[in-house]
Amino acid sequence: MHIDILTLFPEMFSGVFDASILNKANEKGKYSYSLVNFREYSDNKHAKVDDYPYGGGAGMVLQPQPVFDAVEAVTSKKATKPRIILMCPQGEPYSQKKAEELAKEEHLVIICGHYEGYDERIREHLVTDEISIGDYVLTGGELGAMVVVDSVVRLLPDVLGNDQSAPMDSFSTGLLEHPHYTRPADFRGMKVPEVLLSGDHAKIDAWRSRQSLKRTYERRKDLLENLSLSTEEQKLLNEIKKNENC
Amino acid sequence: MHIDILTLFPEMFSGVFDASILNKANEKGKYSYSLVNFREYSDNKHAKVDDYPYGGGAGMVLQPQPVFDAVEAVTSKKATKPRIILMCPQGEPYSQKKAEELAKEEHLVIICGHYEGYDERIREHLVTDEISIGDYVLTGGELGAMVVVDSVVRLLPDVLGNDQSAPMDSFSTGLLEHPHYTRPADFRGMKVPEVLLSGDHAKIDAWRSRQSLKRTYERRKDLLENLSLSTEEQKLLNEIKKNENC
Repeated sequence: MHIDILTLFPEMFSGVFDASILNKANEKGKYSYSLVNFREYSDNKHAKVDDYPYGGGAGMVLQPQPVFDAVEAVTSKKATKPRIILMCPQGEPYSQKKAEELAKEEHLVIICGHYEGYDERIREHLVTDEISIGDYVLTGGELGAMVVVDSVVRLLPDVLGNDQSAPMDSFSTGLLEHPHYTRPADFRGMKVPEVLLSGDHAKIDAWRSRQSLKRTYERRKDLLENLSLSTEEQKLLNEIKKNENC
Repeated sequence: MHIDILTLFPEMFSGVFDASILNKANEKGKYSYSLVNFREYSDNKHAKVDDYPYGGGAGMVLQPQPVFDAVEAVTSKKATKPRIILMCPQGEPYSQKKAEELAKEEHLVIICGHYEGYDERIREHLVTDEISIGDYVLTGGELGAMVVVDSVVRLLPDVLGNDQSAPMDSFSTGLLEHPHYTRPADFRGMKVPEVLLSGDHAKIDAWRSRQSLKRTYERRKDLLENLSLSTEEQKLLNEIKKNENC
């Protein structure tokens, strides 16, 4: 997979892209990326990329020309059809399912605005996807682009080792994860639940399933709505609801 | 405001924190931050911070000792009570409202795990908030911490200039933003809507209100549910719904 990131702040990415799993995946050739400063594609003599909004109002708006030209420059040499992604608060809420979908692509182009709005023609005539990483306002699309790259690259084949894959994968099963405990068994009087020290794996599995359901029910009822539970899970959930009402 | 970030990868933050608005806010003294590698607080002779989970299973779990000790070190000298935030997929979904709430605090401590799970005692006995930036899986909590810092710092007094504040603030009004257009009026045959070139500000405002409602209705019906619309907006929304059914 190759990822082109169009940004006015390419220097923002090094800390994240040079660290940890993203760096290893890049070194092992699992993915490559380019940081493209689309200011270099401006045909304005002052390399301007934004201008005042038609109709008035505060804030600047990114002009179509530099963005169209930069996207065309990075896509023209490729044989495969890229996904062209605009990071913006009006986009589709990003999800693990979307990350899995993007992980199957060969070429992603990610466009980051930076406190400006985008000219609507970029949205209508250039991009294939608009993504929002959440319902909050950020200074620019750069952090969103890093989130997309991180979540996608860790799904590529042979990127994660076994010891890295399991624990945080809350959204793959659709449920939030059960609690984890490690050494010491007693930390300042705070103890690990007996069942986890019992060595009885059937009991441990049952405890974990119940905790996972309970946590999802207590914190994120919305996730349960989209899930088809097994008969066993449904029974457990009914018990959890019953206990809550006592 | 002071923000302490507890992480095993402090080098990940420089690109984002040294750029743009976060850097300016820091230089102008609007906020300060420290990157604290909690590995330095491990009482293990190999500076180990994680161990195998009790009860078995894949993945490593962050031990309570280094995290408790690091949090206590950064909070013991302060007179104000800090918010102690754990970045994790099981947390409360982050929102603009939460960013506004955190922007009122004097001291934030943000704990980032990195592909490990957290020992449950950290969750139960140490933190005041658990935050998830979205329903997707990331390599670690570092990007989440950057999202929280960026979204909070831009809300601090005198951090944003007028020209930076307006355009992307979709979630402040509860509606998604209306489309923006800038020069040229005709780009490769793609034209700016006539109304925006009319100079008639009442018409422009009406067009923008309608577009903002329409976009929210088409893309994010869930946002409309939590909103109390004005009579005017409700009328517009009814018209939009009616047109859709024709």
